[in-house]
Amino acid sequence: MRLLLVLLLAAAAAASVANAGAESVLRSVTDVPDADALFCDSWMLSVETGNAGPWRQVPARCGASVRAYMEGDRYASDSAVAAAESLAFASQAFASGEGGAKPAWVFDVDETLLSNAPYYAQSGWGATQTSVESHLSAQTSQYVDPSPAIRSHGEAISSFLASGLVEFNETSFDAWVDVAKAPALPSSLKLYNELQGLGFHIILLTGRSESQRNATEENLLFAGYHSWEKLILRQPSDIGKTAVQYKSERRAVMEVEGFKILGNSGDQWSDLIGLPVSTRSFKLPNPMYYIS
Amino acid sequence: MRLLLVLLLAAAAAASVANAGAESVLRSVTDVPDADALFCDSWMLSVETGNAGPWRQVPARCGASVRAYMEGDRYASDSAVAAAESLAFASQAFASGEGGAKPAWVFDVDETLLSNAPYYAQSGWGATQTSVESHLSAQTSQYVDPSPAIRSHGEAISSFLASGLVEFNETSFDAWVDVAKAPALPSSLKLYNELQGLGFHIILLTGRSESQRNATEENLLFAGYHSWEKLILRQPSDIGKTAVQYKSERRAVMEVEGFKILGNSGDQWSDLIGLPVSTRSFKLPNPMYYIS
Repeated sequence: MRLLLVLLLAAAAAASVANAGAESVLRSVTDVPDADALFCDSWMLSVETGNAGPWRQVPARCGASVRAYMEGDRYASDSAVAAAESLAFASQAFASGEGGAKPAWVFDVDETLLSNAPYYAQSGWGATQTSVESHLSAQTSQYVDPSPAIRSHGEAISSFLASGLVEFNETSFDAWVDVAKAPALPSSLKLYNELQGLGFHIILLTGRSESQRNATEENLLFAGYHSWEKLILRQPSDIGKTAVQYKSERRAVMEVEGFKILGNSGDQWSDLIGLPVSTRSFKLPNPMYYIS
Repeated sequence: MRLLLVLLLAAAAAASVANAGAESVLRSVTDVPDADALFCDSWMLSVETGNAGPWRQVPARCGASVRAYMEGDRYASDSAVAAAESLAFASQAFASGEGGAKPAWVFDVDETLLSNAPYYAQSGWGATQTSVESHLSAQTSQYVDPSPAIRSHGEAISSFLASGLVEFNETSFDAWVDVAKAPALPSSLKLYNELQGLGFHIILLTGRSESQRNATEENLLFAGYHSWEKLILRQPSDIGKTAVQYKSERRAVMEVEGFKILGNSGDQWSDLIGLPVSTRSFKLPNPMYYIS
C-alpha cells in the first residue's frame, strides 16, 4: 500500500513539477559565465578534473583567482583533504593485506612533496609566464635586467622576489631547483610519514632529470623527507617522452620488481594515468601549470 | 651574462626565502579543516577528482554546502565550462578528421543529459538519504506516510515536494524515472545539439535498465533531445556488474562496430574509466551521489 502510494505521489508530483517549479531548480545557464571569479572557479575545477585538457598558461582573467586560491585557505585545505583520503585508503588497504609483500606508494615531487610556491608567486602564479615544465613552447628568454640595487645578496633579495621583474622560464626554474630550498607541502609531508609508519615502500617518480638528482635529494632532506626506497628521475633516454609515457614505463618496472602500487599521488593527471595504474590515484591541486 | 645573473639571483633568493618568508607562502595545514564550509568545498572537489573514492552519502555536515552548490551559480557554471571545453575539443578533433568515418560521442543520461535535481532536492540533496543509484546498500524502505492533506493531486503536490517527509530510495527513484519529466541539464542540451551539428554520432549509455527504455526515451524527448544513434540500457545479463564493467564492455562493442569514441561525458568516474576509454573524457559535477 505504501509503495503504491509513493508511486502515485511521485508520479503526480513529477508531472506537477515539470509544469511548474521544476525548471527553477536548475539555473538555465548554457554559456560560460561572464564574471571572472565564477568562470575562474569553474576553470580551476576543470583543471582538477582534467576536463581542461592541455593548456599553456593560466587565463589572464584568472590570475587573481589562482593567486587567491594558492595563498588562501583552499589550497591548503584541498591538499589536506586529499592527504586524509589517501591515508584512509592506505590504512584500510594495508590492514587487509592488499599490498602483499611489497606494498608501495608512488609520489611525484614538484607540487606534490615539494612546493615551488615561492618561485611561482613571483610570476603571477602561472598567469603571466610560460609554464616552465610543460615543454610545450620554446619561447626566447626575456629577462628584465634587475636594478643594481638588488644585485647583492641579503635583504635586497626580498626586493628581487617582490619586484616581479623577471619572466620565469625553464632556465630560471632549473636554477631554483639547484638551490634545493623548496618547502614541503605540509599535508604531503604528514602523509609521507604516516605511510612510512604503516610500512609502505615509498617510491619517488619525478619528471626532473637525472642531472638534478643531488639537488633533489638535498631539497627533499631539507624539507623533511627521508628514507625513500627509490628516487626515479628522467634519464637521457627519456627525453622527448611525455610524462604519461615515462611514468607509466617506470610503474611497469616497479610491478616487475614485485611492488604492488596501492597509491599514487601527483598534481598532474600525467602522473596518474597510463598503464599500469595504481589501485587508487590521488590528484593534488595545481592551477598553476600543466604537464602532458 | 643575463643567464648567469639570473642563476645567481635565483640561488641567493631561494636561500633567503627558505630562511625567511618562504614558508609563509604556504599555509601549514596538515589536517582537514574544522570549518564546515571549507571542508565541504574541499570534499566536493575530492569527489570531482575521484580522490574521495566510494562513498554512500553526502557527509551530514556538508548538506548545506551541497544544496548551496546545486541551487546556486556554481553547478550551472561548472557544467557550462565542462560543455564549452567539450565543444572546443570536439570542434578541433572533428576538423582534423580524427574521428574517421564514424566519430562518436558517448553521453551518460542521469545528471549528464537529464537532471534529477527536482527529485534530489527533496531529500536534502543527497545528505539525508541513501544514494538510490549506488546499489551499495540495501536498506529497508522507510516511507513516512504523507499526511492526508497531500494525498490528492494539484497544488497539494507542492506540499508533498516541500514536506521532506519521504525518504527516497531506489523504488521512489524508479517511480520518478517512470514519470519521464526530468528537465535537461541546459548546457548539456546545448552541447548535444552542437555535436549533432558537427556530425557526431551520439550514443547514450546509461545504467538504467532495459525495462526503463520507454520512460527514458519519453523523458529525453520531453527534455529536448532527439536523433540519438543508440540508447544503450542495462540488460538482464548486466545485473550485478559495476558501472565500470558494464560501460567499458559497451564501449568495446562500439569500437568493434567502427565508432571512434572521441568524447565521453558523464557525472561519474565510472562512466569514464575502464578500457577502452574515449580520446577525451569530461567529468560533469555531481556532489549528490556516487556510483561504482
